[in-house]
Amino acid sequence: MNISVLGAGAMGAALIRSWLAAGAGVTVWNRTASRARAIEGVHVADTAAEAVAASDLVIVVLLDDASVGQALAGADLAGKDVVNLTTSTPAEARARAEWAADRGARYLDGGIMAVPPMVGVPEAGGYVFYSGPAEVFEAHRDTLAVPLGTRYAGADAGLAALYDIALLSAMTGLFAGISHAFALVRGEQVDLKQFAPLLTGWLAAMGPVTDEIAAQLVSGDYVTGVTSNLAMMVEGNATLLRTAEEQGVSPELLTPYMDLMARRLAAGHPDEGSTGVIELLDTGVAV
Amino acid sequence: MNISVLGAGAMGAALIRSWLAAGAGVTVWNRTASRARAIEGVHVADTAAEAVAASDLVIVVLLDDASVGQALAGADLAGKDVVNLTTSTPAEARARAEWAADRGARYLDGGIMAVPPMVGVPEAGGYVFYSGPAEVFEAHRDTLAVPLGTRYAGADAGLAALYDIALLSAMTGLFAGISHAFALVRGEQVDLKQFAPLLTGWLAAMGPVTDEIAAQLVSGDYVTGVTSNLAMMVEGNATLLRTAEEQGVSPELLTPYMDLMARRLAAGHPDEGSTGVIELLDTGVAV
Repeated sequence: MNISVLGAGAMGAALIRSWLAAGAGVTVWNRTASRARAIEGVHVADTAAEAVAASDLVIVVLLDDASVGQALAGADLAGKDVVNLTTSTPAEARARAEWAADRGARYLDGGIMAVPPMVGVPEAGGYVFYSGPAEVFEAHRDTLAVPLGTRYAGADAGLAALYDIALLSAMTGLFAGISHAFALVRGEQVDLKQFAPLLTGWLAAMGPVTDEIAAQLVSGDYVTGVTSNLAMMVEGNATLLRTAEEQGVSPELLTPYMDLMARRLAAGHPDEGSTGVIELLDTGVAV
Repeated sequence: MNISVLGAGAMGAALIRSWLAAGAGVTVWNRTASRARAIEGVHVADTAAEAVAASDLVIVVLLDDASVGQALAGADLAGKDVVNLTTSTPAEARARAEWAADRGARYLDGGIMAVPPMVGVPEAGGYVFYSGPAEVFEAHRDTLAVPLGTRYAGADAGLAALYDIALLSAMTGLFAGISHAFALVRGEQVDLKQFAPLLTGWLAAMGPVTDEIAAQLVSGDYVTGVTSNLAMMVEGNATLLRTAEEQGVSPELLTPYMDLMARRLAAGHPDEGSTGVIELLDTGVAV
């Protein structure tokens, strides 16, 4: 197993160490060479082009998509398999896939769903979404599975980034909600460590809602089977806002979603659940 | 087992049917009497006062706190145990507890974490938070456990409503995040029903974060043990926003939280996780 890795930042270094521990020969290039040299057991390349030349499989873990273009500008990619784990948008990933194809390389894009301490620790549950040609993924699946779990998202190179960012976006909302919840209770005589598992249990019980939303978006029927309808929810929101005011908590993390619920209700959908709100997020200007 | 129930709306009726099925004698008052009469097997009371007189345990499930005051204005509550499941804020619950004590009643407040179809269906996992004197809760625990699970939140009558609303508020954030995620992917060639479990799994993996936040709020140390710090997260947010723009999705459900993260970072906390954001929600004007 021979691999070249471009990028020895926190995530790159963690991946490299995991592959080294599995017995791989690893050639590393990093813009600041000392970070590559600090990893015992690697071959340090002076240039990205030299690192690319050293292995058939090239893993890229750089700062952003622009760094990828700069680092690889002088490299001969013909016949290489490039796996780009650099954080990027779906459009950047698709453009980079075309760019790689123009240079004779096969290309996989990856979206890392983990932080560096989770690398090489299977029980931590970290994984990477991959997208691009299935045969390229299959060819390197075992190698890619060494540091983190693997999930294949599809042939469209942009899907790994899309899934990655969709999940992180959902997490942002989750964290906003959790922040508001803790803000409400933290000034009270409440044992926060007893409150936490109640919150976790409640949110975990909401899990199946994603399946319901997916089914509703596919069918276009946002009403059948709804147990808590928009009219009831909008009424309930008033109690949530009154409580926030009582507790001295800014409602700013809740109001944008509540406003969309009220708009969808006002548009004549009292019997829907909340799925119709998703349509209101459409700006009509996809790039 | 004799119970009086004030309120035969969707939730009240579901509770009543569950107690009837368990063999209880149930006296019901509802402002619109036909709704009470529609439930086979109950004693229908002409007035709320008559219903209160019929049982030592009085369950109240009305529209809002003002309805409770109006319905019970002429009732003799002396010696009664009143369990108020009407949706209210923590302050309303505390005021209602004092009001009941002034009338010689023992008082429990409840916050229902369920929708009517979950009543009497233990595997649906619905439950009610109760707060007020522990001995009153213990005295009626078995009866209260018939329709839905029970969780005792503490002696302060406001805690059931506080917990209820904190959990619903967190859910609002969760739903906002999920909505944004689906908005990002729904225009693409993505199988939404395959995407949904990925989203659920990712959000479920975030469960332990509530324990970490609780521990940090208790200790006041928002830095130790942080694996994804605010500086990194704020940088990552830019990719989330760029992707939203590419996909034609309004960022309005994410930006309020991102703005708070940026404010906390700018205030000099790059090594914290996201817990410090909670402090920024404090309006300094608790009622």
